[in-house]
Amino acid sequence: MRIAVDAMGGDHSPSEIVAGAVQWVQHHKGSILLVGPIEQLSKELASYDYDQARIELVAASQVIGMEESPAQALRRKKDASIVVATKLVKEGRADAVLSCGSTGAQMASAIFILGRLPGIERPPVVVALPNGKGSRTVLIDAGANVDCRPRQLLHFAILGSLYASSVLNIPNPRVALINNGQEEGKGNQLTLEAYELLKNQSSLNFAGNIEGREILAGEADVVVCDGFVGNIILKTIEGMAMFIAKGVSRELGSVPEFFTQLDYTQYGGAPLLGVDGISIVCHGSSRREAVFNGLQVAADCVDKDIVKLQKESLEV
Amino acid sequence: MRIAVDAMGGDHSPSEIVAGAVQWVQHHKGSILLVGPIEQLSKELASYDYDQARIELVAASQVIGMEESPAQALRRKKDASIVVATKLVKEGRADAVLSCGSTGAQMASAIFILGRLPGIERPPVVVALPNGKGSRTVLIDAGANVDCRPRQLLHFAILGSLYASSVLNIPNPRVALINNGQEEGKGNQLTLEAYELLKNQSSLNFAGNIEGREILAGEADVVVCDGFVGNIILKTIEGMAMFIAKGVSRELGSVPEFFTQLDYTQYGGAPLLGVDGISIVCHGSSRREAVFNGLQVAADCVDKDIVKLQKESLEV
Repeated sequence: MRIAVDAMGGDHSPSEIVAGAVQWVQHHKGSILLVGPIEQLSKELASYDYDQARIELVAASQVIGMEESPAQALRRKKDASIVVATKLVKEGRADAVLSCGSTGAQMASAIFILGRLPGIERPPVVVALPNGKGSRTVLIDAGANVDCRPRQLLHFAILGSLYASSVLNIPNPRVALINNGQEEGKGNQLTLEAYELLKNQSSLNFAGNIEGREILAGEADVVVCDGFVGNIILKTIEGMAMFIAKGVSRELGSVPEFFTQLDYTQYGGAPLLGVDGISIVCHGSSRREAVFNGLQVAADCVDKDIVKLQKESLEV
Repeated sequence: MRIAVDAMGGDHSPSEIVAGAVQWVQHHKGSILLVGPIEQLSKELASYDYDQARIELVAASQVIGMEESPAQALRRKKDASIVVATKLVKEGRADAVLSCGSTGAQMASAIFILGRLPGIERPPVVVALPNGKGSRTVLIDAGANVDCRPRQLLHFAILGSLYASSVLNIPNPRVALINNGQEEGKGNQLTLEAYELLKNQSSLNFAGNIEGREILAGEADVVVCDGFVGNIILKTIEGMAMFIAKGVSRELGSVPEFFTQLDYTQYGGAPLLGVDGISIVCHGSSRREAVFNGLQVAADCVDKDIVKLQKESLEV
């Protein structure tokens, strides 16, 4: 297995990304194609002791910043690290690509280089959150698509259900729509219409609406929303964890062990689904542990062959 | 001061609502107009020792349920407790109304009976969240309006800023737009357009975009969003508090004191702004402490004369 890593994206690139990649080859039998300026990356690698045959450098001279328009940047920066890394997957030289850089640029690269799967208009990002039942709750779309149509939410639900069953091994996942009330008939224009599609035009195990309060309770296995709402849920959860950790630590003098499972660095990777290749989105603030964990997610997706599974699932 | 209380709304009506009202007259010099079926309310009141001159019963024979369409229910149920209670404010017999029932029905009653303030299309609900700086962050709209236009978000920002300065005593409140990224140019169609209005067409202390992660950090005093997003933020915060409290309590054998400040029962009331009268929305699961605290919020709004302040602020 070979994973292409965009070494130049995110707040702590390339040092923390290189560190995470080294750590991964030390613990996993796969290899890494590290994409970025060769000289800079060579210097970073020089300080580590690892099997040098398992990290190959691939040159890319440009980086797409967080503030750039993804579509424009993609046209102008042909040699951007995320572009080069995604092409490695397209050309069959890598089994997956991972980046901590601009999600928009990563998504645009995936769409234009790898292509969308049949029937998919907008590829969503999926994250697996810890829940109160000790298992995982899949949040989809976790931030890729800010303005969505009802049918796109149906696609997210199908892909999220597939991810829950095939990667997280949850049989017959209960799929719920995130809404501002549990009752049928609650919602904004988007969720009202999406509810109808989920109820009447899918063979999913649809459990109806779910409120923000229940997301982490574990009553549903897959929770569906547009990427604007998904981004805000994810970041509100993150902010709330920091807020409580601070308050509790002031009171007790230390942070309970439980908070480590709320730390996004423990998750690392969020797969971009609905594209013809494996592309793993990492948090912009990722440090080495997050990169390492993201690589584990990538490897898991390669092992499970999630692109093939998605194609089969979408054919039905 | 007299406050009309809808005794019939919410999960624990009327017993917990009656209990909260009794507790309030025992601690506050104001009086209560308790609205609902006289016989049932008399029985509830019989078990308490309080100054009977300070709780007056007002008859209402109907209740609007959570699942009913607010507009239809308002037409059909002329004698609903929320309708009768809101009319008491319109007629000058009460200074404010408080309900734990259907927010939609309360909002429709406020719009049709009290009327909207000049220029306001959609009255928002405002809540004051505790934040990491030990002060409060105003979230507006916290759930009243699910599909909004950009100009409505501008109105929410103006009303939220006024609430922060006049009721919470925060000078020159920093107003931020909740978005899926901090950079200008991030957002969905709604927030992109609202950003322009906030930046160019208001005299607010506009601080730009804020992500979910920063809401509780206290970097902004007022955070603005549509009511769909506001509902989901509020309930996600609630769910996260429960999830962490459970995890930490399993580890430590008890819940740290800090969690009490995250308990919605400690807040109680969320004023509905932009209407010509004071209407306080309480959580449907409110128990006596929440009703008591909601009545304190109502009294505070009466003392500060927030309707007059809003009228002055909207004239400018």
